[in-house]
Amino acid sequence: MTTVVPVEKKVLNENQRIAEQLRQRYAKGGTLCLNIISSPGSGKTTLLEKTLAGFSQKDKVAVLTGDLQTENDARRLARYGFPVQQIVTGTVCHLDGRMIERALEPWSSTEIELLFIENVGNLVCPSSYDLGEEAKIVVLSVTEGEDKPLKYPSIFSKAALMILTKVDLLPYVPFNLEQAKANARQVHPGIEIVELSCQTGQGFDIWQQWLTKRRSAARERFACAGA
Amino acid sequence: MTTVVPVEKKVLNENQRIAEQLRQRYAKGGTLCLNIISSPGSGKTTLLEKTLAGFSQKDKVAVLTGDLQTENDARRLARYGFPVQQIVTGTVCHLDGRMIERALEPWSSTEIELLFIENVGNLVCPSSYDLGEEAKIVVLSVTEGEDKPLKYPSIFSKAALMILTKVDLLPYVPFNLEQAKANARQVHPGIEIVELSCQTGQGFDIWQQWLTKRRSAARERFACAGA
Repeated sequence: MTTVVPVEKKVLNENQRIAEQLRQRYAKGGTLCLNIISSPGSGKTTLLEKTLAGFSQKDKVAVLTGDLQTENDARRLARYGFPVQQIVTGTVCHLDGRMIERALEPWSSTEIELLFIENVGNLVCPSSYDLGEEAKIVVLSVTEGEDKPLKYPSIFSKAALMILTKVDLLPYVPFNLEQAKANARQVHPGIEIVELSCQTGQGFDIWQQWLTKRRSAARERFACAGA
Repeated sequence: MTTVVPVEKKVLNENQRIAEQLRQRYAKGGTLCLNIISSPGSGKTTLLEKTLAGFSQKDKVAVLTGDLQTENDARRLARYGFPVQQIVTGTVCHLDGRMIERALEPWSSTEIELLFIENVGNLVCPSSYDLGEEAKIVVLSVTEGEDKPLKYPSIFSKAALMILTKVDLLPYVPFNLEQAKANARQVHPGIEIVELSCQTGQGFDIWQQWLTKRRSAARERFACAGA
């Protein structure tokens, strides 16, 4: 595997360069970009569906959603009336800066105030690729086990927020909620945590408050930069 | 990403070379090797725990289990009295042939009749790395959604068997079992399918029968090769 290391570094350096350009683009346009990462099936798309349903049509929200195959998620998300684009990666296990750059081309940089990126379902590789986002959000469903932050520390150490999804299933699965949170904090003491269920709506207000707080801060920064 | 392609090919070719050596080693020793792949938290370790509990101490079974971090799974599996080794991959998102080769070094090739490899929790990258196994098994829990075979076709097209786990949760999750099976068969018409729950034991006998059938066939092949 030694031969791959310098190339991997080169690829990551090149990605970093593009990520900086994306960051500048977001800053100039006043876009808050959130990069959502999880295992397949943790509920990223369902979370986004319910989140989009809570916005008004005046909200300048857009979504980029990545998958190896199918446009299913874009179809599901487009029903809410906001701009959505599917990025089909083929065999690539993560989204990278170049894919985001290309996907953003048709959109003007000032028409998006909040950009959600739903990464490819993979708890490992996407954590290495900066997409110029303001924050990474890691989604962990309670059916996956409380040990995941310890086993996949890279993404949990980089994420500003962990969303524990499917808490309505807690009565039926062997999942120690307190241990899960302690494990996440062991890897990343400052991580914020929201527990919610998209089925019952429990905890969804906390997630919306988190978003509102982040959007207000982004708006203030944008106003200051323009002043 | 163009620069990475030739190196990726080189790495995969080198892996293929080692995989062929592993295949020879398994054939010589009469070892049936099964490579178990899934998302994080689909229940690979729990499946293996329950499977090991069903063997007698005379069974020559061994397990290699891969994770980015922690030796938790090896500790869980070692309680059943069979040889178990953890492979900690650090930042690597899959097991490769070299890691298996190294892990097998302390074991004689004739002392293992059934070798389970529990891959790193990742539905994408492990599918590209041949470990010399007789069969790949993909594990999909019913909490992950029936669309996964279409979104991650590589692993579903390569797996001989799909194990649908956590079927005890079916009353509580929006999962269309028939659609999941149809999706898997769309990607891979010949895929075998077992539905089970490690919590209730439902369907576990079907999995054990699948194993018995595969072990008998491997034993026959080994006997013929030696004759």
